[in-house]
Amino acid sequence: MKNKKIIIIGGGVIGLGIGWQLTKSGTDVTIYDSAEAGRAASWAAAGMLAPLAEAHTEEPDLLNLGCESLALYPKWVSELESDAKMSVGFRVEGTLIVGLESDDTHQLRHLYQAQQQLGLNVNWLSGGEVREIESALSPRVSAAIQCETDYQVDNRLMVTALKTAYLNNGGVLHENSPIEKIHTKDCHVEGIETQDGFQPAEIVILSAGCWSSQVNGIPDEFCPPVRPVKGQMMALQMEDGISINSVIRTVRARYPTSVYLVPRTDGRLIIGATSEEMGYDTRITVGGMFELLRGAWEAVPGVYELPILETWTGLRPGSRDNAPILGKTPIENLIYATGHYRNGILLTPITAYEISKLVLSGNTSDALKSFQLDRFLE
Amino acid sequence: MKNKKIIIIGGGVIGLGIGWQLTKSGTDVTIYDSAEAGRAASWAAAGMLAPLAEAHTEEPDLLNLGCESLALYPKWVSELESDAKMSVGFRVEGTLIVGLESDDTHQLRHLYQAQQQLGLNVNWLSGGEVREIESALSPRVSAAIQCETDYQVDNRLMVTALKTAYLNNGGVLHENSPIEKIHTKDCHVEGIETQDGFQPAEIVILSAGCWSSQVNGIPDEFCPPVRPVKGQMMALQMEDGISINSVIRTVRARYPTSVYLVPRTDGRLIIGATSEEMGYDTRITVGGMFELLRGAWEAVPGVYELPILETWTGLRPGSRDNAPILGKTPIENLIYATGHYRNGILLTPITAYEISKLVLSGNTSDALKSFQLDRFLE
Repeated sequence: MKNKKIIIIGGGVIGLGIGWQLTKSGTDVTIYDSAEAGRAASWAAAGMLAPLAEAHTEEPDLLNLGCESLALYPKWVSELESDAKMSVGFRVEGTLIVGLESDDTHQLRHLYQAQQQLGLNVNWLSGGEVREIESALSPRVSAAIQCETDYQVDNRLMVTALKTAYLNNGGVLHENSPIEKIHTKDCHVEGIETQDGFQPAEIVILSAGCWSSQVNGIPDEFCPPVRPVKGQMMALQMEDGISINSVIRTVRARYPTSVYLVPRTDGRLIIGATSEEMGYDTRITVGGMFELLRGAWEAVPGVYELPILETWTGLRPGSRDNAPILGKTPIENLIYATGHYRNGILLTPITAYEISKLVLSGNTSDALKSFQLDRFLE
Repeated sequence: MKNKKIIIIGGGVIGLGIGWQLTKSGTDVTIYDSAEAGRAASWAAAGMLAPLAEAHTEEPDLLNLGCESLALYPKWVSELESDAKMSVGFRVEGTLIVGLESDDTHQLRHLYQAQQQLGLNVNWLSGGEVREIESALSPRVSAAIQCETDYQVDNRLMVTALKTAYLNNGGVLHENSPIEKIHTKDCHVEGIETQDGFQPAEIVILSAGCWSSQVNGIPDEFCPPVRPVKGQMMALQMEDGISINSVIRTVRARYPTSVYLVPRTDGRLIIGATSEEMGYDTRITVGGMFELLRGAWEAVPGVYELPILETWTGLRPGSRDNAPILGKTPIENLIYATGHYRNGILLTPITAYEISKLVLSGNTSDALKSFQLDRFLE
């Protein structure tokens, strides 16, 4: 399959990651992005690699996929940093999930029990114990779960690195190039229609995030069930007198938004995120900013004085069951790699490795089996 | 004095207003602004014309000056709109000062009594009565003071109009032209030093807002005692389902920041403002934004869903006694028009009319007498 032409629709971390892996094996790859590659959900993300903190007992396959992808991260980072000749800000200080009020502690206890039932490596900490790790936490923090193996990566650096590595390996990237449609014939992909006309391809990979359901040419019944889930975020500048090293996540039973604080090596402190069903609306709102500011301030009072560097919105590609849609589809040679919802950065390595293997071998690995589109088809 | 050359340092509403009035009488005026004219406090302001709401019993002269300037506003607006051929968004819906909790009501009652002692035209309203005027107010609003004659103007439109009117009348404006120093000799102004060399002037008017104390060449003892007082602000976009016509000010006894909401004709809703002693720092902070959002949301719950269009910071030129510094100085032919603090937009007409009269006649009017620099000199 190495001599075949592959087209990837969508140049976020998923599309770039797959493209990079394929070009390393000498495959002819072209990525089309409707805007600037890597500037949608990949850019908006916080870069948390948190399968344990995000664990839900009702989603064991997804938890497993996340843990497998996290286990691939050291190899992924080493390979990517070597190819791109830059750091991607991979940090292993771990994650602390904190609660402030008694109902938060109840919710935290419930999560901890679920994590223990799943056999996850987590620790219960008192308020005093967690403040020994992060002294900037509020005296109101009454309990915490420590997820020592939930790491972070700087997703914006990863975008830049993936783009560099992909292009250095001979990948072709068309930015600001929305495609008109996917060409199919007899349930078989023939290529895509762009503004410059028909582009033939042996395989088309759809990795267009929350826009994946909007691509023309796919019969309705096989469209990936992906919708945008809006998240508002901001970045603060850490200054003298405030130092945070762990990723901090809050559990707030009474509030509409539980926030997280992700400290970057360059001194930025990322605060996120709302979770809103607002279609493709990307506006910053009073309520969104208010919940982020309140949540961050209550957990880490010292942020009150910090400058706000940037506010932004991202659209998570949420599937119907929160898990990604990966692998073959009923349309021959059309492959899906979309619907990564809250876990796009975490799941990039396993998606890139497994989908590129699928393209090269034609065989679906065990890792992909539970995540194919066919789970939604009757 | 019409043939003399006048130099004005600082092209905010004060400098532009004086310049415009002087050029109308045929005077030769040149304004120097260190940045873009009208883009500092004049641009950052909310445009409230609120001598009653801002009244303090301990500042009767200032209250009087504010009321006199407000009385000039209809004439000022008519003259300016005619000269500039544009609207400046003057609106007469009045101002409502609202309280939410019982300690707010106490503070409101105290303010109302002070206003009554000063003989001001204000009305006490119950929560129900004030919601009949502005139905978007929270059910928690328990009482209000109505200041029917506290109006608003769109200060950004006024900046544009003043610039247009000034230039149309032959005024000269040098933007991005910081001056090196004021040239004095024997306590007498001779001109200014610019990057292009010495510029002679018969009269120099200093209207450089919070930078007025930073101008070189004035002996320390005669420097205007003006400092920057930082205010953080934002603009929301009003949408269907939320309609506000009055200026709304909150009194919040328990919070560090009482906010105001100023509805513009174009659908913007201005929210302000913090009051911070932070020098020339203009950064947007967590605490600043949080207090504005909380204050606005608690008074008008419907703002929660509104998009944030813009955030910004202004530096009010605060004098030692909160009143402006107007008129002659111990340095002959150096005139001050600075230190307008929270009332720059309100006091623009009286400042422009009275200072231009002073320049043309050489005589200090009664209106200016209490506000000269000499009140600070021992």
